[in-house]
Amino acid sequence: MQTLEKTHPKLQVLKNRLTEINDIDSATSLLYWDQATYMPAGGAAARGRQLATLRQIAHEKFTSLEIGQLLDDLATYAADLPYDSDEASLLRVTRRRYDRAIKVPSSFMAKLSQHRAESYEAWAKARPENNFAIVQPFLEKTLEFSRERANFFPGYEHIADPLIEASDYGMSTASIRVLFHQLRDRLVPIVQKITAQPIADDACLHQHFPETQQLAFSLKVIERLGYDLKRGRQDKTLHPFMIKFSLGDVRITTRVYEHDLNQGFFSTVHEMGHGLYEQGIAPDFEGTPLAGGTSSGVHESQSRLWENLVGRSRNFWQYFYPQIQHAFPNQLGQVPLETFYRAINKVDRSLIRTDADEVTYNLHVMIRFDLELDLLEGQLAVRDLPEAWNDRYRSDLGIVPANDQEGVLQDVHWYSGQVGGMFQGYTLGNILSAQFFAAALRAHPEIPEQIRRGEFNTLHQWLKTNIYQHGCKFTPAEVVEKATGSALSIEPLMQYIQQKYGEIYGL
Amino acid sequence: MQTLEKTHPKLQVLKNRLTEINDIDSATSLLYWDQATYMPAGGAAARGRQLATLRQIAHEKFTSLEIGQLLDDLATYAADLPYDSDEASLLRVTRRRYDRAIKVPSSFMAKLSQHRAESYEAWAKARPENNFAIVQPFLEKTLEFSRERANFFPGYEHIADPLIEASDYGMSTASIRVLFHQLRDRLVPIVQKITAQPIADDACLHQHFPETQQLAFSLKVIERLGYDLKRGRQDKTLHPFMIKFSLGDVRITTRVYEHDLNQGFFSTVHEMGHGLYEQGIAPDFEGTPLAGGTSSGVHESQSRLWENLVGRSRNFWQYFYPQIQHAFPNQLGQVPLETFYRAINKVDRSLIRTDADEVTYNLHVMIRFDLELDLLEGQLAVRDLPEAWNDRYRSDLGIVPANDQEGVLQDVHWYSGQVGGMFQGYTLGNILSAQFFAAALRAHPEIPEQIRRGEFNTLHQWLKTNIYQHGCKFTPAEVVEKATGSALSIEPLMQYIQQKYGEIYGL
Repeated sequence: MQTLEKTHPKLQVLKNRLTEINDIDSATSLLYWDQATYMPAGGAAARGRQLATLRQIAHEKFTSLEIGQLLDDLATYAADLPYDSDEASLLRVTRRRYDRAIKVPSSFMAKLSQHRAESYEAWAKARPENNFAIVQPFLEKTLEFSRERANFFPGYEHIADPLIEASDYGMSTASIRVLFHQLRDRLVPIVQKITAQPIADDACLHQHFPETQQLAFSLKVIERLGYDLKRGRQDKTLHPFMIKFSLGDVRITTRVYEHDLNQGFFSTVHEMGHGLYEQGIAPDFEGTPLAGGTSSGVHESQSRLWENLVGRSRNFWQYFYPQIQHAFPNQLGQVPLETFYRAINKVDRSLIRTDADEVTYNLHVMIRFDLELDLLEGQLAVRDLPEAWNDRYRSDLGIVPANDQEGVLQDVHWYSGQVGGMFQGYTLGNILSAQFFAAALRAHPEIPEQIRRGEFNTLHQWLKTNIYQHGCKFTPAEVVEKATGSALSIEPLMQYIQQKYGEIYGL
Repeated sequence: MQTLEKTHPKLQVLKNRLTEINDIDSATSLLYWDQATYMPAGGAAARGRQLATLRQIAHEKFTSLEIGQLLDDLATYAADLPYDSDEASLLRVTRRRYDRAIKVPSSFMAKLSQHRAESYEAWAKARPENNFAIVQPFLEKTLEFSRERANFFPGYEHIADPLIEASDYGMSTASIRVLFHQLRDRLVPIVQKITAQPIADDACLHQHFPETQQLAFSLKVIERLGYDLKRGRQDKTLHPFMIKFSLGDVRITTRVYEHDLNQGFFSTVHEMGHGLYEQGIAPDFEGTPLAGGTSSGVHESQSRLWENLVGRSRNFWQYFYPQIQHAFPNQLGQVPLETFYRAINKVDRSLIRTDADEVTYNLHVMIRFDLELDLLEGQLAVRDLPEAWNDRYRSDLGIVPANDQEGVLQDVHWYSGQVGGMFQGYTLGNILSAQFFAAALRAHPEIPEQIRRGEFNTLHQWLKTNIYQHGCKFTPAEVVEKATGSALSIEPLMQYIQQKYGEIYGL
């Protein structure tokens, strides 16, 4: 935090309180990370309780009268500071969060935290058993909780609005519907043209790639991309995620399939993109509410930018392909770069969102977004959800899941405690990844040539300067405007897809 | 917790509060475990702060007026319960801890926590650099803190008493001095007789033993001994320890030296002994102050019992030696069992406590115990400590450290925040390990024969029934009396040493 010469003494008190809450949140994150990486099965029951306890303590401390009083006392002081000063931003962001947080009673948070644990456990059982009936009562309760949560914020236009705004500030059901409608209209014809052609051969990715070598190679790559392993590390988990315990400790997790090179590698680069964002936040923000990404969409833009626009580009592999051939000589030594490039960019009508290619991915997201709205509006009952899911896959992607495991049970999101606001960030992220990348290239046309030489610093620095360092000082819309000079737009994404896949598929 | 038909409603409220505090303590433990195992260097600064924050919150919550009021309100109810009922024990133990805790101000705890982190960091730098001057100012401050802490408990006979009682309830400087004096008088002549003979050849332990195989073998052994890997796990660290996050998640850590088989293996068995204690506590105690070992001495008795009385016995290796030969055929295939047995039981005048054999080990502890008292009494200045240390090694063990790294800087204890009460538990543990083992053998004379067959269940169950399950329901003295039928005594240890080493060295 940049120190003005005479910081208001109450601001120092506020910062101390916020750092205490941040410390509790970090401990909560560690409890979660450990649960997902190393915790033995016997620790599960107590861990659920420990997570709930710490979340509740943090919520109580943040919504205390003392915080409210300090914010009130500092209101005049804040009004005199320049909008984009660190102190004004800290007070503005904290006020916004505080006003949201106090609307939600601690008792609700405690009940929800307990329910989240139970619902997750039910899903972890239902998914392998392919049995939606197990989660149905939990999901019904989750839906009630989500409605109750939304209703703590009366005056909304659509019941999903408060839930969307919690993760993508400034967006609403209406604005996303418009955006997604435009995008869908442009994507569907492309998907149809591509899928009318023979499917690309990606057999080269489905040989045996031993775990140890996969992990070693991907670590080498992300270090080269700019991920600081002195301030991070990578561990194995079931569902990969990025998590931060402090600005000096931003970790990623991954999973490796020995018969699918795609999964582990791109999952690592994806989570690293999230990690670069958090590692790039101004060190002065440590321990304050400013030390985080500004929205789910902007965060996802960074994972997707590094995973797709960089990691699935021909330039990228012109540098790294000899290295991966060296790591897996028997598997890739005889495979031409172009075959590999087309394999990692194979477009196909598929059932699993996280495995989907860049072109069809957003169709998966839109299905979920629409179903969330239907559920919240009461137009769709939970018991009818599997059928509605399958219907949408039939109409939108032309294929139908053989079972709920590859259908409605595939994503953890709804089963970990909320319906509403859970998916739009993925597509906002894709849209923004192309928009930010295009802006970086306008500023530094040499970036593609640098990537071809394995140099990523110019791109990394541009992202750091224009996005990462600000943490959540600015709103998503402000970040997009400042970094790209215009409002959020689907044009750069469409241009990127048309150009890249037009070339591959000769459209 | 066994539920009486009509639990006092206030007891339920108290239990809920205690579980909340226990959850915070568990999160603190996880912050520590992670710091010592996986945390990247960049996380250090924030981690120190996070640990301090959580410790302070737990201390504030435990010393709150509410807890005091609940204990007062429940005093009459507690008086009517049978002494050894779970509820009476919970109230008795909580009262005792509460009365201790409220004497120490939160502000002192916060200052100390901060100092602990700084002092540890200084030691971590000073030790490899072999530079006592780096830690000297920190240790001087630690000594002040320790005196200040003792003085929160006025009325003591010796200033170390409150510090000793915190980890070994019921013991005092005076009672330990008497005990150590007796032990020393009996040990010194034995050490002299043994070290007058040629030193045993332990070259077989100092071949190259790859880390992966060492870890795999020791894991296999501790599982056979009774450590439940579904409720625990083992990770690598610099200074091994056992740590508990709940009764279903009791972990150990170890370190491996590829050129010293001794270290890693016996360190693993040692920490596992601590782990068996915690894993064996009655599940009903989960989340309460009863869910822990009763003292540092009784805890250490379990690590040493499994490490030495079981793990360094001929019976144990009659079962496991073929297995370790199988794991390391090139290294041990041609080494006779008897050579190996004598190597792992080599007695020698040495400089490092943690590497010391069973016979000389307690001499190392006594040196530290006496120096702690001298420091606290003000008879010894911190700046003179290295010389005093070296003098004592010369007079007691007949050798002198070549430098402070293998002298006064070797143990972390004083540098992690306290002088006083840090070492007596090790020797109390050795004494008790032999006393408990002798009692188990009286009850089940078949145990040695079972160990020879690789069966450890009878011993494990006896320890569970007589020690582990009780957690800290009973005082150390009560546990010893109940389990062995007599008060703490050095006779079983002396008998064990005389018999074992008399046989090996033909005394």
